[in-house]
Amino acid sequence: MITLDLILPDTRYPIHIGHGLLEQVDLLLPHLPVPKAAIVSNETVAPLYLARLRQALEARGVACLSVVLPDGEAHKDWQTLNRIFDALLSGNAERKTTLIALGGGVIGDMTGFAAACYQRGAPFIQIPTTLLAQVDSSVGGKTAINHPLGKNMIGAFYQPRAVIADMDLLATLPERELSAGLAEVIKYGLLGDADFLAWLEANMPALRARDSTALQYAVKRSCEMKAVIVAEDEKENGVRALLNLGHTFGHAIEAGMGYGAWLHGEAVAAGMVLAAAASAELGWIKQEEVERVRRLIAAAGLPTRAPQMPVEQWLSLMAHDKKVEAGTIRFVLLRRLGQAAIQPGLDITLLERILRANS
Amino acid sequence: MITLDLILPDTRYPIHIGHGLLEQVDLLLPHLPVPKAAIVSNETVAPLYLARLRQALEARGVACLSVVLPDGEAHKDWQTLNRIFDALLSGNAERKTTLIALGGGVIGDMTGFAAACYQRGAPFIQIPTTLLAQVDSSVGGKTAINHPLGKNMIGAFYQPRAVIADMDLLATLPERELSAGLAEVIKYGLLGDADFLAWLEANMPALRARDSTALQYAVKRSCEMKAVIVAEDEKENGVRALLNLGHTFGHAIEAGMGYGAWLHGEAVAAGMVLAAAASAELGWIKQEEVERVRRLIAAAGLPTRAPQMPVEQWLSLMAHDKKVEAGTIRFVLLRRLGQAAIQPGLDITLLERILRANS
Repeated sequence: MITLDLILPDTRYPIHIGHGLLEQVDLLLPHLPVPKAAIVSNETVAPLYLARLRQALEARGVACLSVVLPDGEAHKDWQTLNRIFDALLSGNAERKTTLIALGGGVIGDMTGFAAACYQRGAPFIQIPTTLLAQVDSSVGGKTAINHPLGKNMIGAFYQPRAVIADMDLLATLPERELSAGLAEVIKYGLLGDADFLAWLEANMPALRARDSTALQYAVKRSCEMKAVIVAEDEKENGVRALLNLGHTFGHAIEAGMGYGAWLHGEAVAAGMVLAAAASAELGWIKQEEVERVRRLIAAAGLPTRAPQMPVEQWLSLMAHDKKVEAGTIRFVLLRRLGQAAIQPGLDITLLERILRANS
Repeated sequence: MITLDLILPDTRYPIHIGHGLLEQVDLLLPHLPVPKAAIVSNETVAPLYLARLRQALEARGVACLSVVLPDGEAHKDWQTLNRIFDALLSGNAERKTTLIALGGGVIGDMTGFAAACYQRGAPFIQIPTTLLAQVDSSVGGKTAINHPLGKNMIGAFYQPRAVIADMDLLATLPERELSAGLAEVIKYGLLGDADFLAWLEANMPALRARDSTALQYAVKRSCEMKAVIVAEDEKENGVRALLNLGHTFGHAIEAGMGYGAWLHGEAVAAGMVLAAAASAELGWIKQEEVERVRRLIAAAGLPTRAPQMPVEQWLSLMAHDKKVEAGTIRFVLLRRLGQAAIQPGLDITLLERILRANS
């Protein structure tokens, strides 16, 4: 097991990465202020892992509630969030009851947001069960639900007490979800580590074959990079925005196609190709580097083209991006492969050109 | 104008108390990071004050959205909160758009919670238009909505950038709302300042006649006490719980009778009588002091008796109180008049006795 520490001004917490961690409740117990927990999972993950976690906790004297939500981004909304509150209140959960997210990014984001709001703040722990959640969404305290007009528009910065990334849980992950997680892994290489990018190009077949050593390294390197960036800028006033490489385009795809039609990672993948293409248009990178990005994304089993939408729809969807300031969309682009940078505003004809070429 | 400063570990903000402040937008402008604001008000307050505030801001170059919600505690729920998000997103409000709460406690709590959640945190300012909001709910950063199973169960600690308490706005306040505000003022005397309690007994007729000097002093003294307590314990890990004197009983009355049937201040008033009665049962204060509390509350035009509910309903409603720890309700009682203290748990026969005597 590897343990990384995420150190923030007001708190710090461990990210444990390894095998067989689900039932190692010694990793959880120090973070429960009272022996009561509420496990939040979904209909796909719960049959696989919920009983094992619950029994391991109950064997150590922790009283457990559980809530099983429908699976998928389409349910990352207020109605579903309310089911967590209903279960907490019906089960007399107190302000010190610890919420445990057992699932992918949607469950992590919703459980974290529920914890942020329940009685104005209850403790919570992330046990991510997808690659995407392990490398990205479970770390850093961004929690949210979607609004019909924009992705992750309603949420909170609220840090977990611990993150437990058990590699063994990836064994049951569908192929498509594995690829979606690889999109966020590729993002780390592109935005900040050219060596890691080269490593990913060399090891993509091993990752897709779920080679245990390769996966653990990819999770560790991604979490390391995220921890450094979040430690520097918890509330996204600066450098943290770079973690949104591909996400301004990606969120527009998700909202435009209807939440759940494209997986988040798939939308981010196509969004990163658009970001690379825009970077080439600005002369920041070469066209052949765009193609290198496209090849790696294709090798991960991910889409390299965005869906067709009228440019007005793109603009209207992107206008709700959280990086918009004074009416200007701040795009995260590639200064070079391995170094992202913010570009405030893009010419509309440039946008039309890259959308036409990559949709 | 008097200005108090609330100083917290991560932030500080002014509480301005005085006359003619609504249109003094110089008090607001330093707190707007960008010249864009969203004013949230309700159907009662908006016709009186919204246009004046909006025009004053627009005259200084601030672009304004506005959202007018239905009035009353019955609407302090997710459906109504969502109307704020709809308006913000439809109006392309950005993360730095400042939300301005123009209304009473319900508007302040909902606007603050919307600001806490919108894009994971937008700035907000409180312009309380009721006495209750001016002396209590606008200060200290408690924001929330209700859940059918419990009052203020879903919310956040999220501080405003400024609080503007304009005494002139109280001129249009209905009698019943004025009395409801006086409940929270009396609370401050009871929990922490015996001299202020005596002052309230002497000045209750002046306060109910809306004597300007008396009202301003009552607002100032209440805000001073709240600022000291919140500065010491922002997240309610200790002394801040004392501000909930009367509220454990009061929240049960509000939820049990249906939100809006009893005004918050009315429920707190009856709750303070119950707290005083319980304190007398424990031998902390004398029965004649309970009657002194009851007389002051009656003099403020407030109910001194709780509605009749079966004791099981009281217990079930109070079980969702945020001060419950390890299954025990932590009651805020009166060690003496002018000094509150926490009592973990009350004997059920004692509870039955005080409920029977005071319902």
